[in-house]
Amino acid sequence: MASEESEVPQINQSQEEEGSNQGKKLSKKEAAKLERQRKRQEAAASAATAALSAVSVDEGPDPLAGNYGDVLLNDLQSKVVSGRQWTKVELLAPEMRDQVVLIRGRVQTIRPVGKKIAFVVVRERGFTVQCVLTVKPELVSAHMVKFATSLSKESIVDVEGVVTVPEKPITGATQQQVEVQISKLYCVNKAVPTLPINIEDAARSEVEIEQALEKGEQLVRVNQDTRLNYRILDMRTPANQGIFRIQSQVENIFRQFLLSEGFVGIHTPKLIGGSSEGGSAVFRLDYKGQPACLAQSPQLHKQMAICGDFGRVFEIGPVFRAEDSFTHRHLCEFTGLDVEMEIKEHYSEVMDIVDRLFVTIFDSLNDKCKKELEAIGRQYPFEPLKYFRGDKKTLRLTFEEGVQMLKEAGIEVDPFGDLNTESERKLGQLVAKKYGTEFYILHKYPLAVRPFYTMPCYDNPAYSNSFDVFIRGEEIISGAQRVHVPEFLAKRAEECGIDVKTISTYIDSFRYGAPPHGGFGVGLERVVMLFCALNNIRKTSLFPRDPQRIAP
Amino acid sequence: MASEESEVPQINQSQEEEGSNQGKKLSKKEAAKLERQRKRQEAAASAATAALSAVSVDEGPDPLAGNYGDVLLNDLQSKVVSGRQWTKVELLAPEMRDQVVLIRGRVQTIRPVGKKIAFVVVRERGFTVQCVLTVKPELVSAHMVKFATSLSKESIVDVEGVVTVPEKPITGATQQQVEVQISKLYCVNKAVPTLPINIEDAARSEVEIEQALEKGEQLVRVNQDTRLNYRILDMRTPANQGIFRIQSQVENIFRQFLLSEGFVGIHTPKLIGGSSEGGSAVFRLDYKGQPACLAQSPQLHKQMAICGDFGRVFEIGPVFRAEDSFTHRHLCEFTGLDVEMEIKEHYSEVMDIVDRLFVTIFDSLNDKCKKELEAIGRQYPFEPLKYFRGDKKTLRLTFEEGVQMLKEAGIEVDPFGDLNTESERKLGQLVAKKYGTEFYILHKYPLAVRPFYTMPCYDNPAYSNSFDVFIRGEEIISGAQRVHVPEFLAKRAEECGIDVKTISTYIDSFRYGAPPHGGFGVGLERVVMLFCALNNIRKTSLFPRDPQRIAP
Repeated sequence: MASEESEVPQINQSQEEEGSNQGKKLSKKEAAKLERQRKRQEAAASAATAALSAVSVDEGPDPLAGNYGDVLLNDLQSKVVSGRQWTKVELLAPEMRDQVVLIRGRVQTIRPVGKKIAFVVVRERGFTVQCVLTVKPELVSAHMVKFATSLSKESIVDVEGVVTVPEKPITGATQQQVEVQISKLYCVNKAVPTLPINIEDAARSEVEIEQALEKGEQLVRVNQDTRLNYRILDMRTPANQGIFRIQSQVENIFRQFLLSEGFVGIHTPKLIGGSSEGGSAVFRLDYKGQPACLAQSPQLHKQMAICGDFGRVFEIGPVFRAEDSFTHRHLCEFTGLDVEMEIKEHYSEVMDIVDRLFVTIFDSLNDKCKKELEAIGRQYPFEPLKYFRGDKKTLRLTFEEGVQMLKEAGIEVDPFGDLNTESERKLGQLVAKKYGTEFYILHKYPLAVRPFYTMPCYDNPAYSNSFDVFIRGEEIISGAQRVHVPEFLAKRAEECGIDVKTISTYIDSFRYGAPPHGGFGVGLERVVMLFCALNNIRKTSLFPRDPQRIAP
Repeated sequence: MASEESEVPQINQSQEEEGSNQGKKLSKKEAAKLERQRKRQEAAASAATAALSAVSVDEGPDPLAGNYGDVLLNDLQSKVVSGRQWTKVELLAPEMRDQVVLIRGRVQTIRPVGKKIAFVVVRERGFTVQCVLTVKPELVSAHMVKFATSLSKESIVDVEGVVTVPEKPITGATQQQVEVQISKLYCVNKAVPTLPINIEDAARSEVEIEQALEKGEQLVRVNQDTRLNYRILDMRTPANQGIFRIQSQVENIFRQFLLSEGFVGIHTPKLIGGSSEGGSAVFRLDYKGQPACLAQSPQLHKQMAICGDFGRVFEIGPVFRAEDSFTHRHLCEFTGLDVEMEIKEHYSEVMDIVDRLFVTIFDSLNDKCKKELEAIGRQYPFEPLKYFRGDKKTLRLTFEEGVQMLKEAGIEVDPFGDLNTESERKLGQLVAKKYGTEFYILHKYPLAVRPFYTMPCYDNPAYSNSFDVFIRGEEIISGAQRVHVPEFLAKRAEECGIDVKTISTYIDSFRYGAPPHGGFGVGLERVVMLFCALNNIRKTSLFPRDPQRIAP
């Protein structure tokens, strides 16, 4: 066993030995069989490898054969700790001129020039460098150039070579100031010769495609579904490398900010007994003979944590929605960022947290993720988000003020209904024009359009102590003060047509002393989508789930 | 609407007014009804409240009635932003002597002394302070003392008073150097008069119960199931406040360490098409007409992220196991901490990360969570975990060495089988005795006892490039180098009796160029359980799910 069958089939043909140099009695047939295979493999391996660098070479007349070739699987099974250092492609720099470096990356493109030169662009985590292979006596053979040009794209290679600084910047790689003159080239793992999508195609912007069309050239456009079917390849584009690193950073700043404000990170169950409060749009399953469903949000349990004296909590975890929404902004499974906190007097305490939290996130992305934002912008050009920085508080408008702005712009909306996506977008435009921000809070929503557990306003129960937050005219956060008094909660549920018996656990949670509290929920994928003005939430979910997709 | 029915039933009897001072046409019946209710409520509220501090008082002859009473719900619906500051109970200190403070907390205990004095212990997030109410002319009335003594335990109160420093330390509160002389006392939210469990009972240690028994006194012992049934109350004990803050810290350090090492945080789907690789122990559900299941681990998807060029990834998220395990260490849903990373040469690169990561976590808990550890230790006494600190690398033994140590201690185990829980615990004792550490790595497990995707050892395929990590003799981490070559992976699957067709997506993931890689998985709840030497994993899960429990 233990080697790629297609590459070294001889392994299974070598001699069989009995016994074991481990001096152990093998207790299982499996173990004994494996031991025999080991012996075979050892013999095959020692026959095939010679050099310290442990590389198999094509049989042939080339005396320089040790400088290139396919690495045997056996040599990738944790055989040695050599102490060799690999340099990251991202970190290659002109100051390293004349240094010998070892890099591991993928073959992005190979361009032979005659039989004596080949250019190999090697990519590592979205960064690329041009590596040059030139036939030189006693260093690089024509066989080696042939080996290089035979490599399939996306194969993993180890390249050893000297860093040089080209006279003109390299245009075909992100490393424009340096090249590597290859002295050794080993293939660590081979990709299949024909890929379902090419990375260059997947990384192409619409602008490029259209500019080429104007010149009469038809470039490949990879559609969304194909990308998602081959997500492993699609993920490798610089834009996607950027998107998911930004997502990681959003989550990180979210956590760090909240921890610094005294919040506790919690985990609440996703498996919920009975049927969830949400009604039809839940995924149901059998839990050891009991009916169960997947949590649509951690609403109940995060409120329980507040009643359990944690004061301020947050949770980052999956949220499941079985809705048949086929929009650019809905998924059946997404990452919820949920917050719940005691409030002393006013739901503005929650809005204050939202305000400072998101400004901190935006500042951090702009300051620390420049490379990632640039990579995204090259494929999907976008304008930086306009928001109030520094001491200026985030804009807060009441729902009534929003309705009034729309009215003045000639758009009549129901003052006690909800805004539809179109009105929200229009209001976003009006707000951006009037106030110069694409990030704002709309609060005091009509009570009728909020969940039953939303606290009504003290002075007008047609409105509620609730808010939505918008980025570029799209809703990104929903929050509110909650009803913390069980009798009133039951009354509100009844008024909303909910059978109180079905939510008795929820209501009972508030019978043992419940502090006034509020909170909000955000979708991680939506934050990244809207910050980067992407057109589809599937672009910001690593493996999106929608009503038609549950793979890969 | 809008007020606690049981407390202010008169609200629904007041006059009804038409129209709206908002000058808006109400578009929904619901809104109109709410508006009428608002008017009723407003009238009732203005009749009931007078003082700026907005507190309802018992009708009666007491001229000091404004200093105490139940807060009306209307005054808790975000009525004002007064600018008042609440002081945290945790932060009260002798330096604040003579200052007037406002605190919000729960009534933990009330002890009247005659009719003129009452001691109220107020608790906030596990910290308690003794507050004293003494009848004084023109300040505190006998009515007020009566009001205080009528408060139900666990009710939320606002206490205003002067900080004093008692002559002798207070023994019945965590704040032993300060008291608060109450001048105002308002009940923000009432708990039901009879609680299903008392916090003092839930917070009691076994030692206390046994010591009392020796004196012939029978104290209440709250069993695990009752605790979990009333988790909201159980959560409020100082030990539980500590446990879940420690859990939050473990997760935080896990993330921060990995981010600092170039890892990217990802989120992979929990809804998986078809049936998971795990076989029978999965939760199945219907996904829009397609068979689906809940992910038993992010194994496949985290490896795909590595093949997708993220280099080093981690994920923190729920993991679902439908196994019928009724042990102290298994749950049907827990929080998985998963790591996957490219390796250059050797699986020791993964063990190096585990080593430094966990030592960093332990150091951080010991250094930054002293209060929490003490709180846990008071209820569940434990010895600090013994591990190698500083420059000394974490102990690494091979499986063979472990088997040998057991053998020398007279315990024969199958050298190519797995260790059972008992052998693991015994080995933990032997290791602790010989090496002075309760945290160590056991590596090179027999291949036969690891999943098919585990890389066999280069020199002996009866063993594998895998490891488990132990804390106090219990397995906490499982990790390995993975097979990254698709043909060999298929072969290994076949050898393990797996139908290769059922895992073709997984195998295909490695066809487009796959770097050598490895990783590991940890259960968050287990880390906390074993670090604190707790005896049941249900103690470290906020809302545990086991084969018999899916509530609350």
